Amino acid sequence: MRDDVNCQWTVAARPHGNVKDSDFAYREAPIPEPGPGEFLLKTLYLSLAPVMRMYMQEGGSAGEAPLALGDVIHGRGVGQVVKSHHPDFAVGDIVHGQIGWQTYKATKASPRERFFKYTARDLPVSLGIGVLGMTGFSAYCGFFDCGFPQPGDTVVVSGAAGGVGSIVVQIAKAVGCGDVIGIAGGAEKCAMVRDLGADATIDYKSDDVRAKLKELCPRGIDVYFDNVGGDILEACIDAMAFKGRIVQCGAISEYTKAERRGPRNYTQLGVVRANLNGFFVYNHPETFPIAERTMARWIREGKLRYVEDIVDGFENMPRALARLYEGKNKGKQIVRVRGEPETR
Amino acid sequence: MRDDVNCQWTVAARPHGNVKDSDFAYREAPIPEPGPGEFLLKTLYLSLAPVMRMYMQEGGSAGEAPLALGDVIHGRGVGQVVKSHHPDFAVGDIVHGQIGWQTYKATKASPRERFFKYTARDLPVSLGIGVLGMTGFSAYCGFFDCGFPQPGDTVVVSGAAGGVGSIVVQIAKAVGCGDVIGIAGGAEKCAMVRDLGADATIDYKSDDVRAKLKELCPRGIDVYFDNVGGDILEACIDAMAFKGRIVQCGAISEYTKAERRGPRNYTQLGVVRANLNGFFVYNHPETFPIAERTMARWIREGKLRYVEDIVDGFENMPRALARLYEGKNKGKQIVRVRGEPETR
Repeated sequence: MRDDVNCQWTVAARPHGNVKDSDFAYREAPIPEPGPGEFLLKTLYLSLAPVMRMYMQEGGSAGEAPLALGDVIHGRGVGQVVKSHHPDFAVGDIVHGQIGWQTYKATKASPRERFFKYTARDLPVSLGIGVLGMTGFSAYCGFFDCGFPQPGDTVVVSGAAGGVGSIVVQIAKAVGCGDVIGIAGGAEKCAMVRDLGADATIDYKSDDVRAKLKELCPRGIDVYFDNVGGDILEACIDAMAFKGRIVQCGAISEYTKAERRGPRNYTQLGVVRANLNGFFVYNHPETFPIAERTMARWIREGKLRYVEDIVDGFENMPRALARLYEGKNKGKQIVRVRGEPETR
Repeated sequence: MRDDVNCQWTVAARPHGNVKDSDFAYREAPIPEPGPGEFLLKTLYLSLAPVMRMYMQEGGSAGEAPLALGDVIHGRGVGQVVKSHHPDFAVGDIVHGQIGWQTYKATKASPRERFFKYTARDLPVSLGIGVLGMTGFSAYCGFFDCGFPQPGDTVVVSGAAGGVGSIVVQIAKAVGCGDVIGIAGGAEKCAMVRDLGADATIDYKSDDVRAKLKELCPRGIDVYFDNVGGDILEACIDAMAFKGRIVQCGAISEYTKAERRGPRNYTQLGVVRANLNGFFVYNHPETFPIAERTMARWIREGKLRYVEDIVDGFENMPRALARLYEGKNKGKQIVRVRGEPETR
């Protein structure tokens, strides 16, 4: 990677099915000069998330501006401020926010870009796009603000080996929930989820999910944290306990389908007085400082482990994204661009 | 109708699409003699509800025991006790509960049959299967327990000319909600809904529902009371306000389809932090006495009008049910079997 230019990945074609190399184009642009009120940052890490394929589609989606062909792809990252004309950001600050798939960015840090200063400076800054960034905040805010967990609750988490899911499993145990059951694909991922503290796991690739839910949740599911949608969401709806809560966080099984579908058995919610609570992390900014502080503490106390799946090198961004849809990632998928800062 | 036998309607065939005459069989049985702990009632009115077609399907549904071919069809009604060996029910009492499609019933009033005494004896007893029975309780409990309305809220009600919807429109106005918008099919039904106090109506048969929602709900929908599912549910999901609540009460558009579908845009809930709250009236018994007392008061004060669509004669039960799926009923669909009791 050249450091004297701004390396960028752009949308070359609208993805159909999983993303492929030809959906992306690489280019080099001049390093931008920050204008009045702006700062310049160097990218340290970039985050990969299932939603990115939706950004690349015609018309865009999920709260970001639609992308034209040739636009730099949206994506969050961690960077270090290297020049600043901005009153709130100083040279050396570590920030996470909407950097995009590029190695430099000049920005005013508009509300839309959602830049936050990373304050847990004794911990790796990569966590700013992981457990102490929007991934962790998604787990924390979704679980507490939309799942309303109570001690002893039976909690089921799908995508439990993924970035958000692996955190939900741990924080559910950290606050005294009862049986915490992770759903993941494959024996290796399931072993990892049990290692994180899950009481049991369901391997959706080999188990009968409905039968296992019945066996593992004899009193029904109190909180279902949904990262996947599709058949697993429908199976969990049919297994909810009275007054159960579903956190609608993700729907990765739907993102690559041309025709999306909703849970066909949604009227079953009424039978057990269950709620399907829509969740989108940026609607919960009031909880972010609490989430960062509490989870940083749990990390230091050894109660919360994070699992990063790091791909090296900016040139591998497209490949790193494809891993998500192929179900290959274990933990939060990130790309190391420059890595940890030289000055902390 | 013969009064010296127990006239009954049974399941002759599983319905496909709308119900038709050949799905039902008529028969006459002896009047049952109440055993120890039982009482005998004479049917006065019977209720028709969209869910009944689901009862008739293979495997049953919606909280009632599955029906075999030849079984008396489930259904609630109002009856008068004519013999009693039950400590809590005396001759002359008016009760509503699970009578079934028949003109007499001997029963212990098991919890499953959900018999309630009708206490508003100054008002017509037909209300015990309408505004002061499960229909009204569905409107009241769904709206308050699952919709969490606030003064000034923008409220949208689908199926607004139906039994439940026409009550929701009125109680929303009675408690100081803001714009209350009813969705119904046809100019005549819409006029009726406006006459009940709706600020505006949308005729789903002739209006562009999405365009009208945008026009009539410029700040979005705070409470959407869903009786229909399908396209209208999807349109309302896309029009929800921040922290809006959807009461999932009914899905009449789905009941007659072989392949049911869920709202394909359910992930949009998260974008505005909206909730889809499952509702089934029998999960809210704690609210029933409050609902009966409050709505009886509103009726006496002229704040709550009820609309009954009465079909005369037990022999017309199948036809009365078909009216619901054809969208012909205006207000609560009931059949007058014997009508008001001779002694009050």
